[in-house]
Amino acid sequence: MEVPHLKELRRSYGFDEVAIVPGSVTVNPDQTLIDFSIGDYSFGTPFLASSLDAVASPKFAACLGRMGGLAVLNLEGIYTRYDDPEAVIQHIIEAPQVEATPLLQKIYSSPIKDNLIGERVEEIKREGVACAVSLTPANTKRLSPIAMEAGADILFVQSTVTTARHISKSEQGLDLYDICKQVRAPVVVGNTVTYGATLELMETGVQGVLVGVGPGAICTTREVEGIGVPQVTATLDCAAAREEFFHRTGRYVPIITDGGMRTGGDICKAIASGADAVMLGTTFAQAEEAPGMGYNWGMASFHPALPRGTRINVGTKGPLEQILYGPTSMTDGTQNLAGALRAAMGMCGAFNIGEMQQAEMVVAPAIKTEGKYFQLAGRF
Amino acid sequence: MEVPHLKELRRSYGFDEVAIVPGSVTVNPDQTLIDFSIGDYSFGTPFLASSLDAVASPKFAACLGRMGGLAVLNLEGIYTRYDDPEAVIQHIIEAPQVEATPLLQKIYSSPIKDNLIGERVEEIKREGVACAVSLTPANTKRLSPIAMEAGADILFVQSTVTTARHISKSEQGLDLYDICKQVRAPVVVGNTVTYGATLELMETGVQGVLVGVGPGAICTTREVEGIGVPQVTATLDCAAAREEFFHRTGRYVPIITDGGMRTGGDICKAIASGADAVMLGTTFAQAEEAPGMGYNWGMASFHPALPRGTRINVGTKGPLEQILYGPTSMTDGTQNLAGALRAAMGMCGAFNIGEMQQAEMVVAPAIKTEGKYFQLAGRF
Amino acid sequence: MEVPHLKELRRSYGFDEVAIVPGSVTVNPDQTLIDFSIGDYSFGTPFLASSLDAVASPKFAACLGRMGGLAVLNLEGIYTRYDDPEAVIQHIIEAPQVEATPLLQKIYSSPIKDNLIGERVEEIKREGVACAVSLTPANTKRLSPIAMEAGADILFVQSTVTTARHISKSEQGLDLYDICKQVRAPVVVGNTVTYGATLELMETGVQGVLVGVGPGAICTTREVEGIGVPQVTATLDCAAAREEFFHRTGRYVPIITDGGMRTGGDICKAIASGADAVMLGTTFAQAEEAPGMGYNWGMASFHPALPRGTRINVGTKGPLEQILYGPTSMTDGTQNLAGALRAAMGMCGAFNIGEMQQAEMVVAPAIKTEGKYFQLAGRF
Amino acid sequence: MEVPHLKELRRSYGFDEVAIVPGSVTVNPDQTLIDFSIGDYSFGTPFLASSLDAVASPKFAACLGRMGGLAVLNLEGIYTRYDDPEAVIQHIIEAPQVEATPLLQKIYSSPIKDNLIGERVEEIKREGVACAVSLTPANTKRLSPIAMEAGADILFVQSTVTTARHISKSEQGLDLYDICKQVRAPVVVGNTVTYGATLELMETGVQGVLVGVGPGAICTTREVEGIGVPQVTATLDCAAAREEFFHRTGRYVPIITDGGMRTGGDICKAIASGADAVMLGTTFAQAEEAPGMGYNWGMASFHPALPRGTRINVGTKGPLEQILYGPTSMTDGTQNLAGALRAAMGMCGAFNIGEMQQAEMVVAPAIKTEGKYFQLAGRF
Repeated sequence: MEVPHLKELRRSYGFDEVAIVPGSVTVNPDQTLIDFSIGDYSFGTPFLASSLDAVASPKFAACLGRMGGLAVLNLEGIYTRYDDPEAVIQHIIEAPQVEATPLLQKIYSSPIKDNLIGERVEEIKREGVACAVSLTPANTKRLSPIAMEAGADILFVQSTVTTARHISKSEQGLDLYDICKQVRAPVVVGNTVTYGATLELMETGVQGVLVGVGPGAICTTREVEGIGVPQVTATLDCAAAREEFFHRTGRYVPIITDGGMRTGGDICKAIASGADAVMLGTTFAQAEEAPGMGYNWGMASFHPALPRGTRINVGTKGPLEQILYGPTSMTDGTQNLAGALRAAMGMCGAFNIGEMQQAEMVVAPAIKTEGKYFQLAGRF
Repeated sequence: MEVPHLKELRRSYGFDEVAIVPGSVTVNPDQTLIDFSIGDYSFGTPFLASSLDAVASPKFAACLGRMGGLAVLNLEGIYTRYDDPEAVIQHIIEAPQVEATPLLQKIYSSPIKDNLIGERVEEIKREGVACAVSLTPANTKRLSPIAMEAGADILFVQSTVTTARHISKSEQGLDLYDICKQVRAPVVVGNTVTYGATLELMETGVQGVLVGVGPGAICTTREVEGIGVPQVTATLDCAAAREEFFHRTGRYVPIITDGGMRTGGDICKAIASGADAVMLGTTFAQAEEAPGMGYNWGMASFHPALPRGTRINVGTKGPLEQILYGPTSMTDGTQNLAGALRAAMGMCGAFNIGEMQQAEMVVAPAIKTEGKYFQLAGRF
Repeated sequence: MEVPHLKELRRSYGFDEVAIVPGSVTVNPDQTLIDFSIGDYSFGTPFLASSLDAVASPKFAACLGRMGGLAVLNLEGIYTRYDDPEAVIQHIIEAPQVEATPLLQKIYSSPIKDNLIGERVEEIKREGVACAVSLTPANTKRLSPIAMEAGADILFVQSTVTTARHISKSEQGLDLYDICKQVRAPVVVGNTVTYGATLELMETGVQGVLVGVGPGAICTTREVEGIGVPQVTATLDCAAAREEFFHRTGRYVPIITDGGMRTGGDICKAIASGADAVMLGTTFAQAEEAPGMGYNWGMASFHPALPRGTRINVGTKGPLEQILYGPTSMTDGTQNLAGALRAAMGMCGAFNIGEMQQAEMVVAPAIKTEGKYFQLAGRF
Repeated sequence: MEVPHLKELRRSYGFDEVAIVPGSVTVNPDQTLIDFSIGDYSFGTPFLASSLDAVASPKFAACLGRMGGLAVLNLEGIYTRYDDPEAVIQHIIEAPQVEATPLLQKIYSSPIKDNLIGERVEEIKREGVACAVSLTPANTKRLSPIAMEAGADILFVQSTVTTARHISKSEQGLDLYDICKQVRAPVVVGNTVTYGATLELMETGVQGVLVGVGPGAICTTREVEGIGVPQVTATLDCAAAREEFFHRTGRYVPIITDGGMRTGGDICKAIASGADAVMLGTTFAQAEEAPGMGYNWGMASFHPALPRGTRINVGTKGPLEQILYGPTSMTDGTQNLAGALRAAMGMCGAFNIGEMQQAEMVVAPAIKTEGKYFQLAGRF
C-alpha cells in the first residue's frame, strides 16, 4: 500500500561502514602530496588539532605547527579563564571519575579574562607558527577583535550546529557576512553536516567549513538530543556543496571533517569522502606533548544544564612526531598517520588530496568476529 | 527469477537506527515551545506517564501534573483492586526475582473494587490537576461511567492492539463510536502502529491515538508473539494517517508515541518522526516520586496464561523535576528531557512541536564500538 | 560503472530480522482455529516434532499425538539400531563433551535392524495416534515397505537438501514419483528452500514439503558448507510455490517450516511467512517427556567424515502440555506456544492459519541493547 | 532533495553476509570434480597455501604438493634471508608478545641472500612437486631469473595492490607485459579487487590473478589505511572481469581468492562467488606440518615504518591430510575442506568448480545469538 504524507529517510554511513577501493593505477607513496591550505596559509599535512583544552594548549599549538599541522586554541576555555591552566588541568585529572562532570561544570563557570586572550595568542605567535583560535558565535563579536589585535591568523567560529541563519531573541545574533568582512583573517566556521547549510555558509564568505555533528553512535549529542549525521555521509554531502559552490563562484572553500576518527584508516576514508583536511581530538590527546596528560574532555562536558560527555582517560601513546610520521611498531592504526594516508593514496593512484577525494568507496560494514587471528590470512 | 505470489516486506526502523539532521536555520532553545493538547486540555510539556502501577499512582499524577505533564492512572490495577496499594507494592518489590511473576499473577487476579475507582479519581482531582484514566476495551462500558462521574477528565482505552473493528464471540465488543459520543471527555485510544488502523480509529471520533506495539527488539510482545513494529516506522506511519485525516476532515488528532524511549535523544526522534507527545514508563519509574521505588513491571507481566515481561529493578535516578527540566550532571540522556528536546529543536530551527515533526532524519545505525572515549573527538 | 557478467544477490531474512504487523481488524484469540492437515490426517495444532532421537521416541510420539501434534520417528536412528535405546541415550548424555562427537559417530555406525522398524511403528500405533516415520532417500525404497506394513500413516523422506532430480552414480537414486504412487500413505519430503525446487517436488505427488536448509547463522550446514537460506525467506519462497502449484493444479500441498525457531514469536513469524505448520526440535527436547533428558543432537552430528553440530545440553523446561498450551509464568516465549499463536492471530484479525499467512510483515532487525528493563516501557 | 556532485557508494559483501542457495538438482558428492589449473599445471584440489613464512616452507610445499595442493614460497622472507630458518622461527615464536613486532621488523631487515633462492627452489623440486615462488614487483626483475634458473615452475608477483599501471619515481617500475614474455613459466599476479584493474592485469598476459585487499573488517590494511573490499564482492567483480576477458579473447585466466576464509563454508562461498581456487593462510598455519608451529604472521607485520598485523598464536589443529580430506570429529568447519566443498557442490548440483561458480547466493547476514544450541533445530 502506498502511504501518503510519509517522510522518507535516507541511508547514511559512518567510518566503520565503508572502505576505500584501490584504483586501476597505483603510485609510490613518496610521490604523493598531502598539503592543505586555509586562505593564504598553507600546511604540510591536513591534520588539525581540535580546540579542546586537553589538546590544544599554546605549547601544543607551537609543537604541532612546527611539524606541519595546525592546532586551534579555544578562547573560551581554561587558557583564557585561568592564569595557571596547568594547575587547573592537574586538578581535573586528579578528581575521582564520579566528581569529574560537576567539577568541569564549576571550573568552566569561571569568567573569561579578556587580557589572557591576547597573552595566549602571543604565546603561540612567539613560536613562529600560524595561530588559529576558536570562539562561539555568541562571543565572536566581542572577543575576536582582541584576538586579531594580538596577532591571531585564522578565526574559527564554532558551535554544535552553526548556520548562516540563526534566530535568537536575547541577542542580535552573529552575522557571518559581517564577521567575514570585518576580520582581516580567514574565517572557518562550523559545525555543519548538510549540503544546503554548507552552501549557505560558504556564501557568507568563510574560508573553511568544519563538518561533523554527533558523529559516531555513542556521541553524546546523538545520545542526548538525537541529533547527528554519520561522518562519511556528512562529508560526502558537504563536499558536494563545496563542488557546487566552486562550480557557481570559482572559489574553492576547503571542508574539514571534525570528529569520529580513531585511526589512519578513518582519516583516509574522510579524505576519500571529500574532506580537504581532518580535525582530530583524541588522537592528539594521546600525544606525550598534549596538556591533558592522557585525559580528554569535550566542550559540551561542562554545559551547566545538559552536559554531553565527560572526562575520559585516553592514555598516552607516544610523541607527536611518531603519531604523525612514524616509524612505529604499533599496528592499530594510531601512529604514522601521514604514512598511512600516503600509502592509501598510493594504492588509489592519487598524487594529491584532490585526487584522493575521487577514490571509489564501497559500503562494507565492519562485522567484528571473535577469533581475530585471521587478519593475517591475506599476505600483505 | 521473478517469483510470483511473493509477499514483500517493508524495511522498518527503531530509535537506534535513525538520527535527526540539523537544519539550515537554527533558533535559540529558549524561543521554542513544547506544549501539547488533548481536546481542550493543554499541557506545558509533551510528556505523559504510562498507566503502569509502578509509575502512575494518584500522588505521582498530581506531581507530574503540576510540572506540566500528564500521568494516566490504570483503573484495572493495584490502585483499584486494593485499599492499601503501597503495602501491595512493597510486597511486590520485596519478593525474590524468581517468584515475581507468579506473585504478580496472583495479585492481579484480585477483583477490581468499583468504589476505589471514584476514590482514586478524586484523589487526583483534589490536587488541582487534570485526571486521565485508563481502561481496557472489555471494561470500558462498565467502568468508564464511574470514573467520569468522579470527575475524570480524559479517558484512555488501551490494549496491546486496538482497532475500530474488533470481533469477539463472548461479548458484544466495544463500539468506539458509541463511547466517544457517550463519554463527555476526550477519548484517547491505542495502541496501534499502522496507517490504516489509525485512520479508522480517528474516524470513530477519538481525540488522541497511542502509537506502539512491541517496540524494541526485546519487547516481550515481539519475543512471545512475533508482533511489533519499530517505533520510528510506527510513528511515521501513524503521523501520515493523522495528516491524511486532517486533510480529509480538518480535525487534528494528536498521536502519542508510547514505549521504547530511553533517552532524550529517543524522545527527540519520536517527535521528529511525527509524534505530538510521548508516553514514558521506565523514565518516570526512575523518579524519586515514583510509587515503584526503583522497580517497574508491565501490564502484561501478570497475564494468567501468557505473561510477557516481569518485575525489573530500574533504579532511582533523581527527582522528577530534574528528570524533566534539569539541570543535571548526568551525561547519558536520562535527565533534563525538556532541555534536550528544546536544544534539538533549536538545532533544527523548529519553533514548536509541529515544526520539529518536519525535521529531516537519516537512517544511521548505532554501531557500538569497544573503545568509547572517542565520543569526545568532536568539539561540542 | 556498469559491470557485465555480475552475479546478483538477493537479500534474505531470518526470524530475528522481521516482525508481524497487527491488522486493522482484531479477533478474540478464542475464536481462532489452528488445525493442520497432511493428506487425510488432521491435527489440532500445527506443531510437529523433528525426527531427532533426543526428541521423537515412540513414547514421545504418543504423548504429542494425544495432545494434537505429530512427532516423526527417525527409522535410521537409535530406535531401530538398538533394542534398548534408553540405555544408549543414557550412555550419550553421560559422555564428557569432548568425547560426544566421536561417541555419536560410533553409536550411529551400528547397523539398522529391520525387525525394530516394525516394532517401533507398532509401539506408536498401539497408543492410538497417527504414526509418522522418517527415512533418508537412500533407504526409502528398502525400508518404507516394512514401516508401511507395520501400520505407519505418514512417510517423511528427508535429507539436508532433497530435490526431484538427484543425480547419483553408485545407486539408481530415489524416484519420488514412484514412491508417491507405491506408498499407500501421504509422503512428506524435504528439506528444500527455493521456489523452483518446491514446485518440482510438489509435481511428484508429495502431500507435504519441509522447508529449511541451514537456517540460522550458526547452523552447522551454513558454517561447514556455506549452504543455507534464512527461514523467513525460505518460507516465503516455498509458500509462493505452494500458491503457484495450487493455482495450476487445484491441489493444496502444505509446507512445514523446519528449524531455527526458538520462541512462540518465531513460530508466529513462520506462519505469517506462509507456513502451514512448523517442525520443532529443541523446543520439544526441553519437554520433561523428551527421551533426551535435557540433551539434544542433530542427525548430522555423527556424520563419519564431516559432522555438523554436536551434543548439546538444552535443559528441561517443563511438561509438554505446558509448553504447548500453558498456563505459564515463563516470559521468554518458550511456553504456551498455542496461546502465543492464537494471541498473534487475534492481533492480526486472522481466524485461521490460512488468514494468518496473509499478515503483513516488516523487516525489523532485532538490535539487542545492554539495558533490558525498558521492555516495560509500553503498557501491554 | 537531489544533491548534485554526490559520490555514490555501492554495497559490498563479505563471507559472513552471504549464503549459498541449494539447487533444483542435486548430485552425489563423490561425482564432483574439484581440480584446478594454472597454465599447464594441474592440481587435484583448488587450495593454495599463502606465501607466509609460518606456512609455506619448502618442506610444507612438498607436503601440500603431494596431497594435490600448491604452496607458494616467499622468496623475500626468512627462507632466503637466513641459512637456518628454523632457528629464526624458533626465536620469533619464543619472543614475548609485546616484543614480537619490533623483533619481526629487525629479522626482516636482514638482506636477501641470492644463493639461498636457488637452494630453496631446489629443495622443493627435489620432492617431485610443482614449485611456486613469490616476489614483490620491486624485486621481480632482479630475482626471478635466479628462481627460474633453479627450476621454479610458477611465478607469483605480489604486493598489497598490484596494477598494470604503477607509477614510481625512484625505479623504472615493473612492466608486467615484459615479465610475462621473459619468464618461461606462468605468471600469477596480485592482489587486486576490481573489475577494471583485473581486466588490465589479464591483458598483460598473466596466467592467474589473486583477489583480495583488506578482506575482513579487522584486516590491518583496512584498519590502518582504510583500504579494502570485502571478499565476496571482490571475487564477484574479478570473476566478472575473467568472464569478460574470456568473452573478448577466448583465453581463460583463473582467479584465486586470497584471504579472509576461516571455514569450509567460506571456501565454498568464495567458489560460488566465482573463484577458481582459494589461497589460505591461517588454515594451513594450523596444520601440524606448518613451520610456524602454531604461530602465524603476515608479510606486512614487519614493515619498518607502518606495520599492519602482528604475530598471532593460531594453534595447531591436526595433520594437513585431515584438514584437507578428513575424516574428522571437529564440527567447526576447519577440517575436511575438500569434503565440505564436494558436499556443497552436491547440494548445488555442481559437477565441477565451473558449475559451482554459477550457484545462486543470497545476502544473509550472520546474526550471532547467545543461545547456540538451536543449531540442531533442523534435522540434518
